[in-house]
Amino acid sequence: MKIGLLGHGVVGSGVTAITDSCAGKKVRRLEVTRILVKDESEMTDPRCTMNVEEILSDPDIEAVAECMGGLEPAHTFVRRALENGKHVVTSNKKMFAAYCGELFELAKENGVSIRYEASCGGGIPWISNLTRIRRLEPISSFCGIFNGTTNYILSRMTLTESEFAQNLAEAQKLGYAEKNPTDDIDGYDVRYKTAITAMRAFGVIVDSSEIPTLGISAVTAEDIRWAKENGYALKLFGSGTNLPDAVSLWVMPVFVGSKDVFAHISDNFNAVQSVSKDLGRAIFVGQGAGSLPTAHAVVQDLLDIYQNQDSDMPAPGSRHVCNDGVKAQFYVRTAAPEKFAEFKASDAGAHALLTKTISLSELLAALKGCGDETVFAAMVTE
Amino acid sequence: MKIGLLGHGVVGSGVTAITDSCAGKKVRRLEVTRILVKDESEMTDPRCTMNVEEILSDPDIEAVAECMGGLEPAHTFVRRALENGKHVVTSNKKMFAAYCGELFELAKENGVSIRYEASCGGGIPWISNLTRIRRLEPISSFCGIFNGTTNYILSRMTLTESEFAQNLAEAQKLGYAEKNPTDDIDGYDVRYKTAITAMRAFGVIVDSSEIPTLGISAVTAEDIRWAKENGYALKLFGSGTNLPDAVSLWVMPVFVGSKDVFAHISDNFNAVQSVSKDLGRAIFVGQGAGSLPTAHAVVQDLLDIYQNQDSDMPAPGSRHVCNDGVKAQFYVRTAAPEKFAEFKASDAGAHALLTKTISLSELLAALKGCGDETVFAAMVTE
Repeated sequence: MKIGLLGHGVVGSGVTAITDSCAGKKVRRLEVTRILVKDESEMTDPRCTMNVEEILSDPDIEAVAECMGGLEPAHTFVRRALENGKHVVTSNKKMFAAYCGELFELAKENGVSIRYEASCGGGIPWISNLTRIRRLEPISSFCGIFNGTTNYILSRMTLTESEFAQNLAEAQKLGYAEKNPTDDIDGYDVRYKTAITAMRAFGVIVDSSEIPTLGISAVTAEDIRWAKENGYALKLFGSGTNLPDAVSLWVMPVFVGSKDVFAHISDNFNAVQSVSKDLGRAIFVGQGAGSLPTAHAVVQDLLDIYQNQDSDMPAPGSRHVCNDGVKAQFYVRTAAPEKFAEFKASDAGAHALLTKTISLSELLAALKGCGDETVFAAMVTE
Repeated sequence: MKIGLLGHGVVGSGVTAITDSCAGKKVRRLEVTRILVKDESEMTDPRCTMNVEEILSDPDIEAVAECMGGLEPAHTFVRRALENGKHVVTSNKKMFAAYCGELFELAKENGVSIRYEASCGGGIPWISNLTRIRRLEPISSFCGIFNGTTNYILSRMTLTESEFAQNLAEAQKLGYAEKNPTDDIDGYDVRYKTAITAMRAFGVIVDSSEIPTLGISAVTAEDIRWAKENGYALKLFGSGTNLPDAVSLWVMPVFVGSKDVFAHISDNFNAVQSVSKDLGRAIFVGQGAGSLPTAHAVVQDLLDIYQNQDSDMPAPGSRHVCNDGVKAQFYVRTAAPEKFAEFKASDAGAHALLTKTISLSELLAALKGCGDETVFAAMVTE
């Protein structure tokens, strides 16, 4: 099967590394014949082109792997590939979370498939396991650590008791974090993955801007110290619960008990859990990012297409996000504690408090109204 | 697809619970039409029969699910089903570890497949994930907690600082352990699963009696106390490493560091890890036993057969077990410490010692020669 590759950065170069190495018998039947690159500096391979038409209009190319990232032009190129009757594999969570409904329809109209294992959980493999569970039974909830960059930063802060900024800088130096780290540290990356997981696990399409999203950019060494002293580890979580007429979805930092498996997922690893009636809890741990693990997921999707293994899921329908049922205790470190006085249960160190059990929306409203830009809030689990 | 079910105990009754409930669209196409039971007391369903010929000779039955356990008559029935051109799914690790080479050949000769997800890791799903990784790249090693019964006992001993016997009795009361618990507590169950995993991960068939196997039946509260005081958790491990001309496979208790994910796998859960070059470490956690999780795996295999998803692996070849490369520090609690004097590095509590880094075969020889029936030995990891 001839493949056109869009993007030859971290993930794209991993894809050619795997397909060119001919490791597995089946992988040898996958041939990347064209690679779209951004500029002359990337024209390192005779297959490289800066003209996307050489891929989208090539009748020999049966599948397109989109590893460009960003909304545009990735979205337009993927649309056009589907319209031209080419299967699509994407590693682009931002684009896919925004347009998955439209792209599924377009794929169906054109008799091709769109796959996205690499967009969510990298090489874990998360999407294919959800798909497998769902063919037997509904999935009732999921949760976990979906972002390697923030998990690396939180792990380092815990290990070295150092501040956020220096660990972010180190993550950037190691290539774990982007120059503009907002998507990772403010939780948007997890938001996209939470929306994509909800789509696969529950069969619903949500407007991801409806997902309440708190990141870790305000976290300090003081918060981590409190966690350690009180038997917790701090992790950035994405969470979803299937409800009769809606879905509960949220992204926020969580203090998990030190006996919990999630407390011991370190460095840039991801760990995600699904819960279903017969199978119960199943947790999948692996590298959620990085060139080869993510490329591994792209190539797995290509192989599934080559082997004609259609996932054959019912078309997802739109659903609203409703978090009315989410009630918990929260940790809030703030310079404006008076704004949280009505919820306070106890102090938590010198500058933070623990709330009584309140609803997530009560917390979010108070955070919005507190006027404190340094505020840090996290859920506290049993 | 019409299915004949052999055995209607814990796993078999889970299979009919899932297939009869018609949860998933595809599961509705799987119909259990005949159930082999042992005696009159089990004839609870009009499909039940005590005559296996009504299944093996029924031309309408395309697949047989063997959930009987034990070597015979399970082995003979599975052989006959394959010879009669029926696909087979088995949850029987003991039988499959012993006869998988012969059964693969028989399946091939008769143009049918034999599947065994439920034999190893229960509902995790372990075998299907190994299969997926292996179609892209070789797996270099695996390890993990393969037995829920012993993990439950060790977890309870750690939590309550109580002795082995009372926790074994409790596990039996809860249905986690058999009346004759030898297979679980002496490590044979893990041995079978290690052999089956080696077959799928490395493509090799081994004589499982070549796998050095130490269990936990000699463990005491004192050993657990030493672990806790020294930052370890005690877990029963199966482990495999692919070598150029052999495989390294062993089963033994391991003291894992308390920051390790495996240290926090509690109760009757299993957790198994594969390592490969591109994907790196991937860990799968789930219920390794129990009626519905194991039955879930059986039904997944039946669906794969129904959907004609052949795993298409090269036929495994025989290989010897060689543990020459396994070197570690070991904990040995013994009434005959003089027999381990040459290896001793330090004391470990009042009645135990830590060895220097020695080879597994040195340890095994010393254990064999020490004449102490109460001796307990475990590997100590970093």
